Amino acid sequence: MNLEEVIVGKVNLARGMRDFLPVDMRRRRWVLRKVRAVFERFGFEPLETPAMERLGTLLGKSGDEADRLLFRVLKRGEGGARGETDMALRYDLTVPLARVMAMNQGLPLPFRRYQLQPVWRADRPQRGRYREFLQCDVDTVGTTSPVADAECLAVVHASLIELGFEAFVIRLNHREILRSMVGCMGMGHLEVQVLVALDKLEKIGREGVDGELARRGVPSDAASELWRLVDAVGLFDDTESRLAALEPLLPERGRAAVGNLRLVLAHAASLGVPATHLCFDPTLARGLDYYTGAVFETVVLEPNIGSLSGGGRYDGLIGMFSGRPIPAVGVCLGIERILVVMDALGMLPDLGVGVQAMVFAMGEEQLPAAMQAATALRSEGVAVRLSPDPVRFKKAMKLASRTGAPWVVLVGPDEQASGQVTLRCMADRSQESLDPASAARRVRGSCS
Amino acid sequence: MNLEEVIVGKVNLARGMRDFLPVDMRRRRWVLRKVRAVFERFGFEPLETPAMERLGTLLGKSGDEADRLLFRVLKRGEGGARGETDMALRYDLTVPLARVMAMNQGLPLPFRRYQLQPVWRADRPQRGRYREFLQCDVDTVGTTSPVADAECLAVVHASLIELGFEAFVIRLNHREILRSMVGCMGMGHLEVQVLVALDKLEKIGREGVDGELARRGVPSDAASELWRLVDAVGLFDDTESRLAALEPLLPERGRAAVGNLRLVLAHAASLGVPATHLCFDPTLARGLDYYTGAVFETVVLEPNIGSLSGGGRYDGLIGMFSGRPIPAVGVCLGIERILVVMDALGMLPDLGVGVQAMVFAMGEEQLPAAMQAATALRSEGVAVRLSPDPVRFKKAMKLASRTGAPWVVLVGPDEQASGQVTLRCMADRSQESLDPASAARRVRGSCS
Repeated sequence: MNLEEVIVGKVNLARGMRDFLPVDMRRRRWVLRKVRAVFERFGFEPLETPAMERLGTLLGKSGDEADRLLFRVLKRGEGGARGETDMALRYDLTVPLARVMAMNQGLPLPFRRYQLQPVWRADRPQRGRYREFLQCDVDTVGTTSPVADAECLAVVHASLIELGFEAFVIRLNHREILRSMVGCMGMGHLEVQVLVALDKLEKIGREGVDGELARRGVPSDAASELWRLVDAVGLFDDTESRLAALEPLLPERGRAAVGNLRLVLAHAASLGVPATHLCFDPTLARGLDYYTGAVFETVVLEPNIGSLSGGGRYDGLIGMFSGRPIPAVGVCLGIERILVVMDALGMLPDLGVGVQAMVFAMGEEQLPAAMQAATALRSEGVAVRLSPDPVRFKKAMKLASRTGAPWVVLVGPDEQASGQVTLRCMADRSQESLDPASAARRVRGSCS
Repeated sequence: MNLEEVIVGKVNLARGMRDFLPVDMRRRRWVLRKVRAVFERFGFEPLETPAMERLGTLLGKSGDEADRLLFRVLKRGEGGARGETDMALRYDLTVPLARVMAMNQGLPLPFRRYQLQPVWRADRPQRGRYREFLQCDVDTVGTTSPVADAECLAVVHASLIELGFEAFVIRLNHREILRSMVGCMGMGHLEVQVLVALDKLEKIGREGVDGELARRGVPSDAASELWRLVDAVGLFDDTESRLAALEPLLPERGRAAVGNLRLVLAHAASLGVPATHLCFDPTLARGLDYYTGAVFETVVLEPNIGSLSGGGRYDGLIGMFSGRPIPAVGVCLGIERILVVMDALGMLPDLGVGVQAMVFAMGEEQLPAAMQAATALRSEGVAVRLSPDPVRFKKAMKLASRTGAPWVVLVGPDEQASGQVTLRCMADRSQESLDPASAARRVRGSCS
């Protein structure tokens, strides 16, 4: 260790990175525990994949876009010295899932997994935007059944309800409805252009989209046709009326997609998702070349904080390493955003501090008795912090207040002599003398 | 997505990496849950740090050795194209802790944290040795009290007991005892050389160590002095007699270290660690320039599978970025090895499968009723997998057996008409007709 080589005081996190101190960890773990429990109730099982993947695996999907986001890892030894790389950090959890499916072709289908792991993206760090963040994906692989799509809606609904969200709506659309709408515009050859423009509707408004469309070579009468279709839907509030309004205006393919969405919606209702939480939105154009069927996005209406989850059916992607198409549908819960929002809105319960009791010896001679008391409390499952040094009463109170522990156990000469401890409740400052086992049960009872 | 660009069938994990499929994840999570609960009972709190750190931070500690193990990450853009790096993946959890302490100087001391996160090391991958593995560290920062050392022993003891280990011993030594022994040999100027040789005792035996010592320039009479000290201890079995045997042979500094170890041992006893689980071993020479006081290592005796944890006091390291010394003592639980051993020895309980019940509709018309039944079960907290397609009885049984779910819920035309479901216990093949809520309570009762 060369202390002198370290520029003291200059140490810092790498750019775009965060630490999670105990107070942060308690919040994160509370939220993660809740969503994990919901995923498992829905029969999804945990999967973890390594942080690093072969470069070829990560670049298999979508070339340039992925490449821009990748953190490449240097080869060891000679190759590394020449700047060679053959691995990179994963930037999503979908490509690793596709690799897992290819390498484990014996897995019974449908394979239902959730994955809660960090991903890394070489974005420019911004306020609230980090280069390492937790991603939370739930997918069903190996079935085209609309029941699986509906279960995605149900698992998102159940997760958000479990976390305490109330006023939210899952917006739905279908990739083939979008494609049909573009067909109605006569712009089939500019499909991606139209969808990229439409995707910005919420941000830039209708005029903004018109500008985008014009720049991308879409004539104004084609744009008008788009708004005519959107407005036909906009006359109605409830999802079935909205679908029924658009249906006759679409070609066969689009009408089939409407039928598929109707099934997904009916199944979602059977799975207990109230209709008030679902809304068909023909302008929802999530992702672009990724999705092949239903697409969805959850927005919290009050307060207006944008989207907390997104997903859809993507029947072309998961099979990319398997040599055969494998249908899949999934949803990604925006867990980092959910954490920020819940914290900002005071939706997290009082999680207390990790430590339930602090144990103090008042003198060196009482250390053994204090340790025995700590052990008695711990064996009852109480989270105990033991002061490593004996302290006087006043100091003990100061340390306990700073820690926030609700209970304090004091062992002084009198307690030592009687084989008892003094148990103090920090909230009401009441004290009583008890044997250690009784004190343990007392604290245990108050904390459970 | 360019399917044709992907060499199908050639996809693989990056070298030295692993996936954890659901069956692996259940085992890992069971073990991690247990140790986490023990750590929290001892008043340690969770901390997480980012996967990537600045290169300067990671190289601050021990230059060459660390450098060899580092996975460096390429800079984005121009710099990356020239092979420039300014970040790397963490290779341990101690350097990040030192950085956290420097950046959060207001943290109340002692700071007690546990950290359960992967680390990455650019080792040559071998059977059972991976380049990404979970590390599990527990440390108390900011106190020199031997109570903190003893709590390390107690937390290791409690963790291993909790996991079901019985015949294990925590071997203890003290850096200053080792140094004194080298002093007795008259080899103070070759201290590191002697300790490197001694560290191999278990692997290569006494003759092997003699060879190593000779090669490193230690004369044979100095080596004899080493064995004389070791043999003086070896005459006794119990730790106090072993310490008492060595004590008079050591200089003042060594005798002070014996006194420190005695305190640690007495405190460990007060914390409920039986003396049979502790043994003073003057040949234990864990790590080299890292530790400054007590050192310890846990070995499982039966079966003879080597060390499952190691740690000690290191008062020089944590302050390296803070500009002042910060004492610390900690222990690292070899969690990956523990997992391998527990699996191999059948120490893991039957964790079942994640899914407690599978729900099947026998025909398309029964899908809604099946979904309602699944929802009723889930609202009781039962982990339910719903078949996305209707299947006949025989196929349902086949699918259920393959999944391993203990309960099956069947909804056919009769059930649909009566508003009931058929609940089948896969173990005894018994079936009964129940309303969904009763079926839910039934399954719930059997699983909890």
